[in-house]
Amino acid sequence: MTPKFDAAFRNFKVTALAGGVGGAKLLVGLDEVLQPGRLTAIVNTGDDFTHFGLHISPDLDSVCYALAGLADLVHGWGRKDESWQVLEELRRMGAPDWFALGDRDLAWHLERQRLLNEGKTLTEITAHFCEIFGIHSHVLPMCDEPAPTLIKTKEGAWLGFQDYFVRLKCQPEIAEIALLGNRAIAGSELVIQALQEADLIVIAPSNPWVSIDPILALEGVRDVLQQKLVVAVSPIIKGSALKGPAAKMFNDLGIKPSAQAVRQHYEGILDGFIFDNLDLEDAEKWQASAIITEPFQTIMTDDADKIALARAVISLGVRILQGR
Amino acid sequence: MTPKFDAAFRNFKVTALAGGVGGAKLLVGLDEVLQPGRLTAIVNTGDDFTHFGLHISPDLDSVCYALAGLADLVHGWGRKDESWQVLEELRRMGAPDWFALGDRDLAWHLERQRLLNEGKTLTEITAHFCEIFGIHSHVLPMCDEPAPTLIKTKEGAWLGFQDYFVRLKCQPEIAEIALLGNRAIAGSELVIQALQEADLIVIAPSNPWVSIDPILALEGVRDVLQQKLVVAVSPIIKGSALKGPAAKMFNDLGIKPSAQAVRQHYEGILDGFIFDNLDLEDAEKWQASAIITEPFQTIMTDDADKIALARAVISLGVRILQGR
Repeated sequence: MTPKFDAAFRNFKVTALAGGVGGAKLLVGLDEVLQPGRLTAIVNTGDDFTHFGLHISPDLDSVCYALAGLADLVHGWGRKDESWQVLEELRRMGAPDWFALGDRDLAWHLERQRLLNEGKTLTEITAHFCEIFGIHSHVLPMCDEPAPTLIKTKEGAWLGFQDYFVRLKCQPEIAEIALLGNRAIAGSELVIQALQEADLIVIAPSNPWVSIDPILALEGVRDVLQQKLVVAVSPIIKGSALKGPAAKMFNDLGIKPSAQAVRQHYEGILDGFIFDNLDLEDAEKWQASAIITEPFQTIMTDDADKIALARAVISLGVRILQGR
Repeated sequence: MTPKFDAAFRNFKVTALAGGVGGAKLLVGLDEVLQPGRLTAIVNTGDDFTHFGLHISPDLDSVCYALAGLADLVHGWGRKDESWQVLEELRRMGAPDWFALGDRDLAWHLERQRLLNEGKTLTEITAHFCEIFGIHSHVLPMCDEPAPTLIKTKEGAWLGFQDYFVRLKCQPEIAEIALLGNRAIAGSELVIQALQEADLIVIAPSNPWVSIDPILALEGVRDVLQQKLVVAVSPIIKGSALKGPAAKMFNDLGIKPSAQAVRQHYEGILDGFIFDNLDLEDAEKWQASAIITEPFQTIMTDDADKIALARAVISLGVRILQGR
């Protein structure tokens, strides 16, 4: 990479759409590679719910903890150096323990709920969190209104996402997914602005159905994306997801899970698409498309992997721009 | 004490009005002395407030923790064997830390809030707590509605009780105390029933102004008390309170704090009154009254003291009954 090319892309303004843990890894890479403040993450809040009277925002927290260097990389969720005094006592009392909140994690939830009760928005509170924990990138919840993702099972029951995901461990077969609580919700001014001002929009390797689609479903978001440079990274590798139910959701909904299926899922908004090296052979058989695809190592096991993938994503964006 | 007398009073049905820590000590004694299930405690909820979105009921918790043997007897509030992971993290984040909730204590608050959000009443939830933690006595919050005690300072500001008590450390001079949030609230059916069915009603050595008066202010309570056998224990010893702002409140409100002032405070509902041995000399100068007074050691430093005072209270009640 030439120094000139390097400087150019470090100054890129990147806005990334992301869900939880998988997406957060790429965000950490982008945060590292870009100049401080050039990255904005728009994060899914379709998984948000209320537990013990506290607003829980799993994806937002995964992203914030990852960017703050506070994430538990061993378990893949929650905070590192965590203790479990409160949860142990809840168990002793026979209280529900299916959603595991560690003590430090809980402190953040209490403080967020206090600020929500004071009338602060989730967007404002997230900015406050970023300030406290020294995050230079901007993190925006996709909206401030409740926008629950609802899962309809083949038995016909509607489930809240955490009910499906954590309590029922993704076992029910999915018949239908309803986004934004089946209501029309406009992307907030900040969200739309972050998309409009971006040199490059990145769709992180998050679950297309329940992490990215809710953001895309916000009024105004798709319109902006169609006019901007957009690069996605496949969360599906060799037909499977590294984490979470993305592959199972493709299957439940009658689509064979594959990187190509992800590319097709985002058809109409993508300019570039990065899939894993392991799918190189498969990619030779893909249908032709205007989307420029590129193989790369998308499994991120350490910071070097995250940085390398972030560079690959931005480089692809720069090259598409230069080729125009 | 004859065995017959002893058996008679162990079968007494006692309903006690109480606030927090001081009152809880006598309740522990009564709980120990009476047959299981013969004690009902009606507990002040005028201090209740919301913190981090959680319903906090300081007196109710002091009473429940004391009766469950879970109270921190060293600090005089909260739970024993407590850890402080969450509070430490809240401090690290710059969140308010003026009301100290330990981890175990917090677990109970989370579970209570969850049950409140499910539509359970504070009365039902308190019964559930008693069941979980093996409390045989009945504990009733004085009411299920919000009934905040409000403090008007001499500067004219109205403060919530915890604001005055914990955050401002009782420093503002009091001009006026407004009970039950200045509304009319009826004593619940269970509260009125527990008073009506009692052989003896005990007013624990709690703060008369902000722990007992809120209970007495409930519609229907005073009427029942006037018809029943009522014995109070003075929380004021040698002009001071062992704990809390009771003496300062008497002063602020223009009354010299003393055991006699407590007796006069409850004039019209009392049949018997126990004051501390240390006030024996002072008591010789008291104005005559129909209330039968008796000195006893009211400072309870261990379980033996609590049991002894409980016996003294019931004995006085039995003797008043036998003398009628």
